[in-house]
Amino acid sequence: MTAATRSEHDLLGDRDVPAEAYWGVHTLRAKENFPITGMTISAYPHLIDALAAVKEAAALANEELGLLEPKKAAAIVAACREIRDGELHDQFVVDVVQGGAGTSTNMNANEVVANRALELLGHAKGEYQHLHPNEDVNLGQSTNDVYPTAVKIATVFAVRGLLDAMSVLQDAFAAKAVEFRDVLKMGRTQLQDAVPMTLGQEFSAYAVMLDEDRSRLAEAVQLIHEINLGATAIGTGLNAPAGYAESARRHLAAITGLPLVTAADLVEATQDCGAFVQMSGVLKRIAVKLSKSCNDLRLLSSGPRAGLGEINLPPVQAGSSIMPGKVNPVIPEVVNQVAFEVIGNDVTITMAAEAGQLQLNAFEPIILHSLSESITHLRAACLTLAERCVDGITANTEALRASVENSIGLVTALNPHIGYTAATDIAKEALVTGRGVAELVLEKGLLPADRLAALLRPEVLAGSGPAPAA
Amino acid sequence: MTAATRSEHDLLGDRDVPAEAYWGVHTLRAKENFPITGMTISAYPHLIDALAAVKEAAALANEELGLLEPKKAAAIVAACREIRDGELHDQFVVDVVQGGAGTSTNMNANEVVANRALELLGHAKGEYQHLHPNEDVNLGQSTNDVYPTAVKIATVFAVRGLLDAMSVLQDAFAAKAVEFRDVLKMGRTQLQDAVPMTLGQEFSAYAVMLDEDRSRLAEAVQLIHEINLGATAIGTGLNAPAGYAESARRHLAAITGLPLVTAADLVEATQDCGAFVQMSGVLKRIAVKLSKSCNDLRLLSSGPRAGLGEINLPPVQAGSSIMPGKVNPVIPEVVNQVAFEVIGNDVTITMAAEAGQLQLNAFEPIILHSLSESITHLRAACLTLAERCVDGITANTEALRASVENSIGLVTALNPHIGYTAATDIAKEALVTGRGVAELVLEKGLLPADRLAALLRPEVLAGSGPAPAA
Amino acid sequence: MTAATRSEHDLLGDRDVPAEAYWGVHTLRAKENFPITGMTISAYPHLIDALAAVKEAAALANEELGLLEPKKAAAIVAACREIRDGELHDQFVVDVVQGGAGTSTNMNANEVVANRALELLGHAKGEYQHLHPNEDVNLGQSTNDVYPTAVKIATVFAVRGLLDAMSVLQDAFAAKAVEFRDVLKMGRTQLQDAVPMTLGQEFSAYAVMLDEDRSRLAEAVQLIHEINLGATAIGTGLNAPAGYAESARRHLAAITGLPLVTAADLVEATQDCGAFVQMSGVLKRIAVKLSKSCNDLRLLSSGPRAGLGEINLPPVQAGSSIMPGKVNPVIPEVVNQVAFEVIGNDVTITMAAEAGQLQLNAFEPIILHSLSESITHLRAACLTLAERCVDGITANTEALRASVENSIGLVTALNPHIGYTAATDIAKEALVTGRGVAELVLEKGLLPADRLAALLRPEVLAGSGPAPAA
Amino acid sequence: MTAATRSEHDLLGDRDVPAEAYWGVHTLRAKENFPITGMTISAYPHLIDALAAVKEAAALANEELGLLEPKKAAAIVAACREIRDGELHDQFVVDVVQGGAGTSTNMNANEVVANRALELLGHAKGEYQHLHPNEDVNLGQSTNDVYPTAVKIATVFAVRGLLDAMSVLQDAFAAKAVEFRDVLKMGRTQLQDAVPMTLGQEFSAYAVMLDEDRSRLAEAVQLIHEINLGATAIGTGLNAPAGYAESARRHLAAITGLPLVTAADLVEATQDCGAFVQMSGVLKRIAVKLSKSCNDLRLLSSGPRAGLGEINLPPVQAGSSIMPGKVNPVIPEVVNQVAFEVIGNDVTITMAAEAGQLQLNAFEPIILHSLSESITHLRAACLTLAERCVDGITANTEALRASVENSIGLVTALNPHIGYTAATDIAKEALVTGRGVAELVLEKGLLPADRLAALLRPEVLAGSGPAPAA
Repeated sequence: MTAATRSEHDLLGDRDVPAEAYWGVHTLRAKENFPITGMTISAYPHLIDALAAVKEAAALANEELGLLEPKKAAAIVAACREIRDGELHDQFVVDVVQGGAGTSTNMNANEVVANRALELLGHAKGEYQHLHPNEDVNLGQSTNDVYPTAVKIATVFAVRGLLDAMSVLQDAFAAKAVEFRDVLKMGRTQLQDAVPMTLGQEFSAYAVMLDEDRSRLAEAVQLIHEINLGATAIGTGLNAPAGYAESARRHLAAITGLPLVTAADLVEATQDCGAFVQMSGVLKRIAVKLSKSCNDLRLLSSGPRAGLGEINLPPVQAGSSIMPGKVNPVIPEVVNQVAFEVIGNDVTITMAAEAGQLQLNAFEPIILHSLSESITHLRAACLTLAERCVDGITANTEALRASVENSIGLVTALNPHIGYTAATDIAKEALVTGRGVAELVLEKGLLPADRLAALLRPEVLAGSGPAPAA
Repeated sequence: MTAATRSEHDLLGDRDVPAEAYWGVHTLRAKENFPITGMTISAYPHLIDALAAVKEAAALANEELGLLEPKKAAAIVAACREIRDGELHDQFVVDVVQGGAGTSTNMNANEVVANRALELLGHAKGEYQHLHPNEDVNLGQSTNDVYPTAVKIATVFAVRGLLDAMSVLQDAFAAKAVEFRDVLKMGRTQLQDAVPMTLGQEFSAYAVMLDEDRSRLAEAVQLIHEINLGATAIGTGLNAPAGYAESARRHLAAITGLPLVTAADLVEATQDCGAFVQMSGVLKRIAVKLSKSCNDLRLLSSGPRAGLGEINLPPVQAGSSIMPGKVNPVIPEVVNQVAFEVIGNDVTITMAAEAGQLQLNAFEPIILHSLSESITHLRAACLTLAERCVDGITANTEALRASVENSIGLVTALNPHIGYTAATDIAKEALVTGRGVAELVLEKGLLPADRLAALLRPEVLAGSGPAPAA
Repeated sequence: MTAATRSEHDLLGDRDVPAEAYWGVHTLRAKENFPITGMTISAYPHLIDALAAVKEAAALANEELGLLEPKKAAAIVAACREIRDGELHDQFVVDVVQGGAGTSTNMNANEVVANRALELLGHAKGEYQHLHPNEDVNLGQSTNDVYPTAVKIATVFAVRGLLDAMSVLQDAFAAKAVEFRDVLKMGRTQLQDAVPMTLGQEFSAYAVMLDEDRSRLAEAVQLIHEINLGATAIGTGLNAPAGYAESARRHLAAITGLPLVTAADLVEATQDCGAFVQMSGVLKRIAVKLSKSCNDLRLLSSGPRAGLGEINLPPVQAGSSIMPGKVNPVIPEVVNQVAFEVIGNDVTITMAAEAGQLQLNAFEPIILHSLSESITHLRAACLTLAERCVDGITANTEALRASVENSIGLVTALNPHIGYTAATDIAKEALVTGRGVAELVLEKGLLPADRLAALLRPEVLAGSGPAPAA
Repeated sequence: MTAATRSEHDLLGDRDVPAEAYWGVHTLRAKENFPITGMTISAYPHLIDALAAVKEAAALANEELGLLEPKKAAAIVAACREIRDGELHDQFVVDVVQGGAGTSTNMNANEVVANRALELLGHAKGEYQHLHPNEDVNLGQSTNDVYPTAVKIATVFAVRGLLDAMSVLQDAFAAKAVEFRDVLKMGRTQLQDAVPMTLGQEFSAYAVMLDEDRSRLAEAVQLIHEINLGATAIGTGLNAPAGYAESARRHLAAITGLPLVTAADLVEATQDCGAFVQMSGVLKRIAVKLSKSCNDLRLLSSGPRAGLGEINLPPVQAGSSIMPGKVNPVIPEVVNQVAFEVIGNDVTITMAAEAGQLQLNAFEPIILHSLSESITHLRAACLTLAERCVDGITANTEALRASVENSIGLVTALNPHIGYTAATDIAKEALVTGRGVAELVLEKGLLPADRLAALLRPEVLAGSGPAPAA
């Protein structure tokens, strides 16, 4: 008969943990202490993988420096690799919102790695006399260097997923820019008719925005390749032997394939959350522009009859239970909402970063949580927008062209040719009478018909071709 | 010959201040210490008046309790009344953004009142042996009770101005609701055509929103009638004699005409900024809805040809140097921007309130600054929107009616009469063919012409009249 | 043999849904369209219950008005009651972040209720010819009135849980206020030693703050008892027969036990999110003050030797893997983080509310999500703080008393008795020499020993007893 | 006799403007339309200079392309140079918060330049037949390219001032890092005693933070060297002749000395506010860390007796009117408040950027205003903090050293030498008995006195020297 529990011991006394649990007494305390969201850190697989990578790198460095027996190191490494292969993620059971600057997350990792390593060495879980969560798995480390390092690595990988998704969306917009390159339409400033452009130019702008945002995101992610592993408690490296920081960094870089560098000033690096604030600021920038683009898509597709009606979004679900045939722009709408969430998360991250005190920021768990949420939701939003909306957009080409021909803004193009004063008179008459600009210009004999036609050629109006000689 | 300066003394030593200045050495230090915005507290006349009112009330209470000679009290009271009559405001020269929890503002007031009172008593400025800024003007007080009390009184008066301006705007919207009561138009949800309504209903909603917001603001302002005068340094009332708090409150209520009450727990009241956070939250609510209303106005007036073109905003300035005849919705646009500012200020106030520590919030000056800015800018925005925009709005009645008659959404009204399935078929056919719903219903013989006409009467569609019997 | 799927039909065509699913084709589309967070609306049981309550009330109103057969109505009511008893919640599978203004949530409810009602009537799931999700379950309703009504009811119930948790925390602080009523300590302003108070006064302030916040929250929750059921699509009540809104409201009030009222202007009520913005503003206020209180607790318990060391928080877990014996204030820390999250959510809600256009706010799903998160996390935070921290706080009484006796701030209490000038001299000498104020006063013969002792009695210093006669 | 006014004409009719005003009818309308803050754009001299630079560059380009007579061009250039020399700034009278996407600011510039140029040509103000604000000064331009270009140039120069101020503050912190390099103290995590460090390391971290922030700011400012001059109305370059954009850019780069580049996609560049959002995000990052540093300074200087008392901030003003001798950390406090303002401004800028629609963002004026405020206030805050606080900070060296010797955290350094278990026992006994760690270690004979002394040498503890051989 197998016992259902095993007893473990910590500073506060003895507690029973489930016999089959890879986590131990520290994790148990944390589970009880932080019953906040019901969402556990296993929701962030990139973080779990990054923690395992850090533990693996530390074990290799400790072995290299003669601080850890090769047998123990091998067992720790093997356990970490299983975790990085996706095993044991369900053992990471601490709430995503937790006190303690990430200590509970680090302890959860130490315990899971230790217990799995014990099994690999032929021991039972909990027999820490053979391999200890703190003394072996956490050797030469402190939560204060392990946790931010793992959060950074996790963020790098999460951001890669976002960059890819942004590329997909950028390509979708760019494809539409090509498809709509000859679709002439009225441009608008301040929601008022301005001058002509092409729908292709409009979609191209969305693609270019995304391209710029991707560049900024790629720059921001560079900053989080700087880690503080080896800093131990407060950055002085107390108890970490000479060579440890460099060895651990080297192994971690090899494991993750990332060009990690150790911060020059570990005291500063250990208390600083600047790179996270910067990253969140860039995510907010992306959110702002995605939201603006979606506002535009919803506006341009408004109608079908009492709206602008310039483009059609592909219908993806019925829009109303009461209004027959109504279809709504639900995909841009969900992207708007993700954007609002990301912008709110930026305030949360800002406050958490500002609240750091002295040698440590105790609020990194909420930074991680908000950052992860922003990145993964933005990724989902970009893919959804590309695949369920942008790819299927069509243009109401004829109506768009008619709106240009019918526009008063056309007269702007004639300024250099008939003069600002005459142009203003034409504009006023067109507005009052409802007649067309070209019609009035011809009627008044201001320009010959062939010249007028040349001036109003689409490529001229949209600025994509040379202006005709005066 | 008159000396250009006089010498004053404080904890840090001696300093010369301009002979003509009513402020003294404490104010001089603060001017030098806080060269932040270049904007002085004189920019907030309500605050200056409120400080004078508090000093006047305290003098009367001190006299009543026998702590201050009647002659001194009379001089202080006279000086305060001059200030409340608008004199000497230019002597309040400390920067609006300042350290010290308002101490410099309080000291500025103490010094100006003392020096003016000295003059009234026949002494020269700076002869504090006759009447002292701290020992007489500030008697029984601490910045920690004077400052929040004055900020609250100033806010009450500023909010009154906002409430009035909101009434003006509400009336403007309500007048348009009456004017447009019979203008039928398409309602929209998610920017897609929904079902008919009247333009009057649309404008009425803006008026109702403002009415609700005014109620919320009036409730929030009630909360700031609770003051902590008499709390002295940290709320324990140390050095304030029995009866002082009540006497000062009574005099202050009489001077201001406000139903002020003393907080039940002065320790809590002295550290608490909850009422300011609440006030700012309500201002943010108002901003959100004003902004939404302005977004709508800009959308409904988009055009003139390639937009919704439902209403016309009165032109107030030329819109473009390059596009002849273009007029832009600049008044709603400026209101949007004020709203964004108010929402940003709310974050500032939130952070300042959260940063309070132990027995005091040292960051009340930025709370005052942000709150004052939000209130006065919202007031200006409401008046400007009413007078320079809403009052002059006109409707494109015929186009609006045509859009209803041309709409597919009309079919929703026929659901109960021809059935959901037939209605859906009509909707689909209308969308594909571009034909009208009524035309198709008649063609298919689904309803007789007179019955159809009855169902599509404006008052029925807009829900303002009884549905015809089935 | 049973088919694994059944076929359903909507505007876009036919789709197979799992045969055992109570949800149908509309929910399927929404699941596919919104793969954003992986968190489904079943995470908010109050919302599911509220949706069932609305559907039940509508069925009863429809039956009462003769629009729905009693048999169908009875089946719908029975299905709704099962849901309100906690059944079928796992069938609410749409993502919490979704486009479409809540339509997918409403459709999910319509489908689950319909399919369960069909079973109760002896039919198979999907046999909508007998009872239809839209035509029967959604009869007389629109997402635009159902969804905000359900969100409001859910919020009322969630807020009740928060109010209870706040009471628990308030009681915990109040109990400590009593326990520490005689513990004299130095009060501080701007982190500098000020004048004496009791630790009881300090904890009492936290209790009073919570009491005030509860009052504000109770006021805010009143505002969300106003519903727009009966508004249908845009507030005009199109297709809702006379008497329907009132009957539905009456049934819903009876079912929920809430004093619900119908908004006076349904067009305004349908587009307005003011009550949610207000609610979030109050939650932010609560967050600000909880965070401030936790900042204080962390500060007061700093140490054990190089900190303020005034109080001890109960240890709940080991604080460090590297520093033996270290215990950290993890419970206040997690509360701080929840507060930062709530403040960020307020920005999200603000932006979503501002983004509403014309007759509807399409972004209510993110408002619901953020609001629910704020309320439930605050509730957990309050309970955790009370039970795992405040209840076990102890005071370092002797050290606190010594700090008062050793303080320079004591001299403030002697101001009225030895004069401000002598007091200032004593203060300066004490600071420079490190000697005590009382010692210096006696040495200089400024006051007799018995008089001095009387002035420095704890109850006098802390303002809780009468000052001795001069 | 000179007329007091002159008459000018615009789209809306005739208006009298003061005869001496260099601004004209468009500016008059704007003054009347936007009575919001009372603060005029002259408050931002960098902006006025930048506008003049743009007008000058455009005139030179127009002359070069043969579009503007050399005489007119010369007059415009001369007028612009006067403005850039600081003249006529008082003529920029439009409110900083304005509708119209900056049109009123651009028109104000056009009118002032035109009227001054007219005078230089020997004409009276208002004689626009000789040189016209729109047709000559604004030739080839639109507000939509002029305004963002000017805002960017103004921001570059403002940011330079901030970078300089940050350097001053960085140097101040760095000088203290050197001064305090040997001052041993306890480091803290989560406000609990951790392990020893030097005060020099603590101050060095602040210097390093600023250095990193300066790098980020320098990167962000690079992004705003990309301009859209030549885009005209919506980016299509309508009416701007070939070669104009490049010529104008070249002249503007020469005038300003900035390596300006023209955006590759002018349609995108004209609607995009990403660079401003990014800039504000970096300013927010700076604010977050400045605020954190000031929180630390206030914490470390808390006392003088019942606080941490580690450092002394130089007294800059008396702290209290009621508490003799009290001095408060008013300089860090004012910096905190500026930080809160900057963080709030970031939300304002975010909302304004998100609200852009289609081809233009109409809300750039509030972006400019908020950005300018953040930059100039941060600059003032950095200089004030350096000069009035950091430079004068002193350390309580003896007390700091005693706190290390008295600390329990010392035991962490002995972990590798006496073992984790023995260390934990020592820690517990020290906490309970109040005795010192070193004393207990010696008493128990765990280490010989000389070995213990070697392990506890400051440079070892603070991680700045090699650990002694085991």
